[in-house]
Amino acid sequence: MKILESVKAGIVSPPAALERLRQLPFEDLGFAKVDHHRALRQGFAEVVFGKGKTPVQVAGIVRSMLRRKDSRQNVLVTRADLRIFAAVKKTNRAAKFHPLSGVITIERSKEITGKGKILIVSAGTSDIPVAEEALLTAQMMGNRVEHLYDVGVAGIHRLLEHRENLTQARVIICVAGMEGALPSVVGGLVAVPVIAVPTSTGYGASFGGVAALLGMLNSCASNVTVVNIDNGFGAACVASCINRL
Amino acid sequence: MKILESVKAGIVSPPAALERLRQLPFEDLGFAKVDHHRALRQGFAEVVFGKGKTPVQVAGIVRSMLRRKDSRQNVLVTRADLRIFAAVKKTNRAAKFHPLSGVITIERSKEITGKGKILIVSAGTSDIPVAEEALLTAQMMGNRVEHLYDVGVAGIHRLLEHRENLTQARVIICVAGMEGALPSVVGGLVAVPVIAVPTSTGYGASFGGVAALLGMLNSCASNVTVVNIDNGFGAACVASCINRL
Amino acid sequence: MKILESVKAGIVSPPAALERLRQLPFEDLGFAKVDHHRALRQGFAEVVFGKGKTPVQVAGIVRSMLRRKDSRQNVLVTRADLRIFAAVKKTNRAAKFHPLSGVITIERSKEITGKGKILIVSAGTSDIPVAEEALLTAQMMGNRVEHLYDVGVAGIHRLLEHRENLTQARVIICVAGMEGALPSVVGGLVAVPVIAVPTSTGYGASFGGVAALLGMLNSCASNVTVVNIDNGFGAACVASCINRL
Amino acid sequence: MKILESVKAGIVSPPAALERLRQLPFEDLGFAKVDHHRALRQGFAEVVFGKGKTPVQVAGIVRSMLRRKDSRQNVLVTRADLRIFAAVKKTNRAAKFHPLSGVITIERSKEITGKGKILIVSAGTSDIPVAEEALLTAQMMGNRVEHLYDVGVAGIHRLLEHRENLTQARVIICVAGMEGALPSVVGGLVAVPVIAVPTSTGYGASFGGVAALLGMLNSCASNVTVVNIDNGFGAACVASCINRL
Amino acid sequence: MKILESVKAGIVSPPAALERLRQLPFEDLGFAKVDHHRALRQGFAEVVFGKGKTPVQVAGIVRSMLRRKDSRQNVLVTRADLRIFAAVKKTNRAAKFHPLSGVITIERSKEITGKGKILIVSAGTSDIPVAEEALLTAQMMGNRVEHLYDVGVAGIHRLLEHRENLTQARVIICVAGMEGALPSVVGGLVAVPVIAVPTSTGYGASFGGVAALLGMLNSCASNVTVVNIDNGFGAACVASCINRL
Amino acid sequence: MKILESVKAGIVSPPAALERLRQLPFEDLGFAKVDHHRALRQGFAEVVFGKGKTPVQVAGIVRSMLRRKDSRQNVLVTRADLRIFAAVKKTNRAAKFHPLSGVITIERSKEITGKGKILIVSAGTSDIPVAEEALLTAQMMGNRVEHLYDVGVAGIHRLLEHRENLTQARVIICVAGMEGALPSVVGGLVAVPVIAVPTSTGYGASFGGVAALLGMLNSCASNVTVVNIDNGFGAACVASCINRL
Amino acid sequence: MKILESVKAGIVSPPAALERLRQLPFEDLGFAKVDHHRALRQGFAEVVFGKGKTPVQVAGIVRSMLRRKDSRQNVLVTRADLRIFAAVKKTNRAAKFHPLSGVITIERSKEITGKGKILIVSAGTSDIPVAEEALLTAQMMGNRVEHLYDVGVAGIHRLLEHRENLTQARVIICVAGMEGALPSVVGGLVAVPVIAVPTSTGYGASFGGVAALLGMLNSCASNVTVVNIDNGFGAACVASCINRL
Amino acid sequence: MKILESVKAGIVSPPAALERLRQLPFEDLGFAKVDHHRALRQGFAEVVFGKGKTPVQVAGIVRSMLRRKDSRQNVLVTRADLRIFAAVKKTNRAAKFHPLSGVITIERSKEITGKGKILIVSAGTSDIPVAEEALLTAQMMGNRVEHLYDVGVAGIHRLLEHRENLTQARVIICVAGMEGALPSVVGGLVAVPVIAVPTSTGYGASFGGVAALLGMLNSCASNVTVVNIDNGFGAACVASCINRL
Repeated sequence: MKILESVKAGIVSPPAALERLRQLPFEDLGFAKVDHHRALRQGFAEVVFGKGKTPVQVAGIVRSMLRRKDSRQNVLVTRADLRIFAAVKKTNRAAKFHPLSGVITIERSKEITGKGKILIVSAGTSDIPVAEEALLTAQMMGNRVEHLYDVGVAGIHRLLEHRENLTQARVIICVAGMEGALPSVVGGLVAVPVIAVPTSTGYGASFGGVAALLGMLNSCASNVTVVNIDNGFGAACVASCINRL
Repeated sequence: MKILESVKAGIVSPPAALERLRQLPFEDLGFAKVDHHRALRQGFAEVVFGKGKTPVQVAGIVRSMLRRKDSRQNVLVTRADLRIFAAVKKTNRAAKFHPLSGVITIERSKEITGKGKILIVSAGTSDIPVAEEALLTAQMMGNRVEHLYDVGVAGIHRLLEHRENLTQARVIICVAGMEGALPSVVGGLVAVPVIAVPTSTGYGASFGGVAALLGMLNSCASNVTVVNIDNGFGAACVASCINRL
Repeated sequence: MKILESVKAGIVSPPAALERLRQLPFEDLGFAKVDHHRALRQGFAEVVFGKGKTPVQVAGIVRSMLRRKDSRQNVLVTRADLRIFAAVKKTNRAAKFHPLSGVITIERSKEITGKGKILIVSAGTSDIPVAEEALLTAQMMGNRVEHLYDVGVAGIHRLLEHRENLTQARVIICVAGMEGALPSVVGGLVAVPVIAVPTSTGYGASFGGVAALLGMLNSCASNVTVVNIDNGFGAACVASCINRL
Repeated sequence: MKILESVKAGIVSPPAALERLRQLPFEDLGFAKVDHHRALRQGFAEVVFGKGKTPVQVAGIVRSMLRRKDSRQNVLVTRADLRIFAAVKKTNRAAKFHPLSGVITIERSKEITGKGKILIVSAGTSDIPVAEEALLTAQMMGNRVEHLYDVGVAGIHRLLEHRENLTQARVIICVAGMEGALPSVVGGLVAVPVIAVPTSTGYGASFGGVAALLGMLNSCASNVTVVNIDNGFGAACVASCINRL
Repeated sequence: MKILESVKAGIVSPPAALERLRQLPFEDLGFAKVDHHRALRQGFAEVVFGKGKTPVQVAGIVRSMLRRKDSRQNVLVTRADLRIFAAVKKTNRAAKFHPLSGVITIERSKEITGKGKILIVSAGTSDIPVAEEALLTAQMMGNRVEHLYDVGVAGIHRLLEHRENLTQARVIICVAGMEGALPSVVGGLVAVPVIAVPTSTGYGASFGGVAALLGMLNSCASNVTVVNIDNGFGAACVASCINRL
Repeated sequence: MKILESVKAGIVSPPAALERLRQLPFEDLGFAKVDHHRALRQGFAEVVFGKGKTPVQVAGIVRSMLRRKDSRQNVLVTRADLRIFAAVKKTNRAAKFHPLSGVITIERSKEITGKGKILIVSAGTSDIPVAEEALLTAQMMGNRVEHLYDVGVAGIHRLLEHRENLTQARVIICVAGMEGALPSVVGGLVAVPVIAVPTSTGYGASFGGVAALLGMLNSCASNVTVVNIDNGFGAACVASCINRL
Repeated sequence: MKILESVKAGIVSPPAALERLRQLPFEDLGFAKVDHHRALRQGFAEVVFGKGKTPVQVAGIVRSMLRRKDSRQNVLVTRADLRIFAAVKKTNRAAKFHPLSGVITIERSKEITGKGKILIVSAGTSDIPVAEEALLTAQMMGNRVEHLYDVGVAGIHRLLEHRENLTQARVIICVAGMEGALPSVVGGLVAVPVIAVPTSTGYGASFGGVAALLGMLNSCASNVTVVNIDNGFGAACVASCINRL
Repeated sequence: MKILESVKAGIVSPPAALERLRQLPFEDLGFAKVDHHRALRQGFAEVVFGKGKTPVQVAGIVRSMLRRKDSRQNVLVTRADLRIFAAVKKTNRAAKFHPLSGVITIERSKEITGKGKILIVSAGTSDIPVAEEALLTAQMMGNRVEHLYDVGVAGIHRLLEHRENLTQARVIICVAGMEGALPSVVGGLVAVPVIAVPTSTGYGASFGGVAALLGMLNSCASNVTVVNIDNGFGAACVASCINRL
């Protein structure tokens, strides 16, 4: 607050203030240091990674996030389940659960801060959970988002029909399992960055998403980068980060 | 010969004779048992895998193959080099060396025994050696062969321009490194079998062709099968074998 | 229908019509684009991959497949369980469940379109589920199919007793776990293509089928190609595709 | 040219024309289809991947690139050596060789088309070749580029001293081998996208860059994406692509 | 006892006696040879690895450990669960269960034998179980222990705030999953040995802790050594062993 | 010598003496402790592993082995080259070099101490170096050895023709690369132990012998054990050890 | 029977008869070909691998094995559970279940056919299940068996105390998880063959037994061979096979 | 200097001064930031990692290190070759090259700062280069060092003869390739920390040191930690760091 008052008083210029805010400390919950400034620093929503945390822990972190009245950031819990949702729901009535992806959202702001549209393209039915995690994350972070599902490379005409959609996006997130070939084809059709997300779908030699991951890392399209297997959240973060530039 | 004479005499029917011939023994060269009947059994050319053999060994095997006057099979040496070629050339003047793929061919028959056309599709310049090994093998085994080079998935329009070529083939061999996505796209465009050959091109996370191999094994097109990394020869054998059905 | 009427009217030749039909679009179910033309394009049955889909999703796709009255294609659901079967059974009384392989079949046509016989050879008792998936798939796709079970390489005389069966097949599917050696031995005994399917049976250093997969990729028999671990369905697709040539 | 004339004549609007140009064909050199429009389509330089091509092949491609007078794109050859450089030098006097990274550049335009600054951060002396490949690629593609070398995580104060540099960049490329930890630390200090490039430096359990690659894919900073091991070129492409948004 | 009497009688010097004691045999429980001298030999607590043992087996070993009246060593059971704890609790009332890490402790001595302080640093909430196993082990072995949780590398300022804590420790145990970068940063800030423990947290390309393990083995800080994934116990043993020097 | 004199004097019984001799120390050469008793202890030849040692080191070790006049053990140097052979040859005129396998032999005894015959079976021409290493090792260790080359599983009739040879052996060493299937087939045909040696021949997915190694470890024949890739020497040691029982 | 009558009649010599018996066919149960002659051929017990088979299947195979009155072979079911045991128990009252290893035994013969003693050495408590599988298998196959448990390499004096036991065995089976170092130490102490069995105990970087497997394959003791992870049965088969020589 | 003058003047206490010195900056050579304070901070020698640097680069760094007159630190170049040595020799006459390990040493101080003795134990002849790198590093860092070579686990009596040496050391570095079992045995014999260094010796399934690395990470001795494959330098750093406590 002191910093912001200095800004008001004209002692500190807004950019300098923002810069200093980015270095400020964080609240200690005992089991997790809640970093309220991360949202501020990166202009993103507040996020909790649910997996490996108890419902009580998650609800505690969410409560701490909501307590700060000056913040209007959206809150996002990823990799949650119904037990975690029940605990969070008690903390905040507005919490919504998205069962396909296991995401909980608490929408506090509908402001659009991303400059263009983020398009999420996915290959098969079983890639939808990861695609939805990316979609919800990107929305909570203030982006206009569209999706294009079930457009795998073995039926290339399905994808080509949507060429217009592809060329209208500012950033594309491409979710695919199995051979992970979709980002290469999509990357060749557009001039914008493509964030590739391998998924752990498939069986046998898909090795839990490794085949798709390697395919994407070796993509012959030069506008493709890759995030971890099933990391729809991370892809949306990067896409959101690019979409604000 | 006895078997064939029995056939002439009407004691043994030709199919029965052929069947028996398929079980017959082979000539022993000391370091390698030359299996003259393999050619007969499978209707293929005589083949020597050059790598790991000395020029003298290869030339010896080739000489033994050529000695049998009743056979008019073509002779093929794969994974050879100039030193092996020099030794083979002394054995037979008609031997030709194909430096891109390291293949030596001795053409003794131009008979076309394959029923349709085999099309070889490859993705990048560095896949050409493997594609050429497949092309020469398929030709030596009596097939009409066409090729379509440099049609990677990141420039999908290049491939789609050749859709007619694709639909005219009876069997397709698809050679690709990096993400190995080409067979999935090609497989989705045709109704014939696609033999996928991963190549060891690329660097880093291509792991000497493993990325492409995994991509192909996980292909979402259901008419794709896979052979070993860089195994252009094997792909052509299977394609040839299918093309005679 | 317009295309087919043009054919009737003589404006479009049947092959050209077929060609155009192969490029036509598909029905959108929201969570999955049902590609009715894939069956037409490839002359195959309609197929749903059950794993990772809910019973409701699978039944919905099957219902959409059955709705098109002009099609008499068989319907196949792979990797299903009893809950999926219950949902599909409500959609169509004729649905049958095959518990060993988890396959659901709805037979609407008994037409044989494959030219020869497909033989399925498997090594051990635990390979039977994958072998049965291949068998049912090949049958649903209009092929005459035979099977030869429990003929592993450590008791080679069992296999050799069936040599006649082997030589009568037009395509052979070879299902094996552990060391995956069966396709090499079978491939050496016949002149037709052998589709090798590694299975995830075994323990320890079988690494969920990787040992068998590598063994098959390195097969010293040149008429062997490989599909993904446990992919009995894929092997049958390729075999069926070859058997129509 | 026809398209551009239509634009001049007012028949086609410039954006529509650009869109159509993006779909146009390419010149066929026999061994490689030179895709002149890729530069146009993506606003990038013309690029040849030198490794695995002969000097004659590379020089041929470069000559074809330079022939088109209407283009003023820079030309870049990556993974080249002195023999390739000698051949290219004959084609164009202005070609320069950068021995650390094996890059050849032919600068034909100094126009800056990127909106902000791309900062390249690298960890150790042995990461410099990859960092330089990224730096030259980004420059040739019309970006302002700065570099910050030898700022590994084990001496965190070196990195923190340059915090101002970090916060002034619009996109950051982070090149690191060994444990690949640098992108996580850098990602935590900035709010812009960080493209991580693992390098194959190190020995033993670095497994040719796999340790760094895995470290980067598992980065706990959510603004990090990853490209293939040693792929400085690819990182610069993506960064350049982002920097034009 | 004979040895100790010889010492009393002056026949054997204490160091020589200690030396001989270190080679003495052990008690045989049938399913496990309880090595009472290990505690003596290494000055450590008595330890049972609970995983893979039945509650009855663990309780039996603990009872045997407690029976020897002359020993005042603490007793530690790692990788236990509530069923094992119930069985141990019956054997000794003082047993305590620590559910986060699955550790059971029976404290019989509060003597501090370690010379300095052991500091345990961990990166994320999900690393806490392993960190706690290390913490309890180090305490039971007679060390002063402090902990510093949730100081990951993507928020480097959190770690730097605790620089004083870091420089006051005599040995540091650094627990981290994901990219495993924390030990490198910590190692660069201190001059004492850092024992790195990779954890199996994370998903996808974390490969159950392999990414973190490789990151730590490739650490660019030269005072870092590594123990097995999730081996908090082992790290504390080594730290304790160093802290007594 | 003292021990042996005690034997002569009747103080120590010969078996007791032998037992004690097995525990005796060894000669120290500075860079390698030559363990003369290993030969005595195991009744084997004296062996030097040549790879990674300089010619001077190898010759020094061989000289030390030959110096002990009371021993008549054969001497074997494995993984040697011509430079090592030149150095050894100076030490002992009788040394012979076997270029295929890189083995040097110095025969000092022709005594046959193995009870039965060891048969070495190998699959392809490129497996011969490893097979020869096994053959020479087994001979130097006092066994009757036969070999059967080029009997791969893809030509099963070649192997079956030699069934009699197989059933006459007391121990079989089976050398194979690629899919490593030979030991399973051989193991099923005999009732004696089969030592399987994977070789690093092949390419692509043979992964330097890993495919063959995994195949052999998963052998469905229960009389098969495995040694390291290319370890013909080790296989012969075990076979020799069994053949003396 | 005909063969044996010919023997009685003096037409066929006993060894020739035995030879012919070894090639005879087998009984077909539909789901599994019961190979009664395997027992005869290899002089072993009848064995069923229980895992992956239903209780009904296992009981059926066991019933078929017991039906042949002329055979007095012991029957062994490995990898069974209580449900399988219940089904087998109904077939034969004498069946016994060994819960540690999941082995079912039906003892029909107590004849000792092995010449010497087989010693089973294991490292830790969690290796006992695999050790017991080996022990029961070896006993059922007619061998005198002893065991030596909990003698890991980190307490080398425990092992050395049993040196006499080690030197009295004719074959040693060495069961160890974690670093798999026990076979090397044991192999160095004896002159007989050592069969090493890696176990899947351990966690983290033990990778389900891979660490132990690799350790054993790289053993520096030359009388060590290896079987698959957890394959106590296979180790006992080979040991038994050696012990009859 | 200012800081040290403040100390002299009594303004700053020595420990506080030392603390501040540890945070001070570093000299920039363009291609490498020479961190003179690392030596001061950690009390170690100045070190250059030679591999991947040119002779000119290494000599430049060494010259910069030697220029600071107030420092009397020893200088160490690891992974060097004769060409690097020639360049360094010109810079400083006192430089010595150790060809086995590729280490260059410039000794400027013989002060012993380590409190006890560091013992280096290695298993085989081919592990000596890594052991020597550890030995020279530890000496240059001011420790008393002894070595014990060629004491592998397959000849356990060799190691046990040196038990006294083992128990006299304050820290032990254990260098071993192949199965990497030595640290477990050594760790069980002593009560001090054991730093295990896997080496890349061996062949086949040693996978360049991975087998040894995994063996060491899974060591059943609880006083063992591990560094990277072939990292003799790192092991000596940690050992030295411990030896100063």
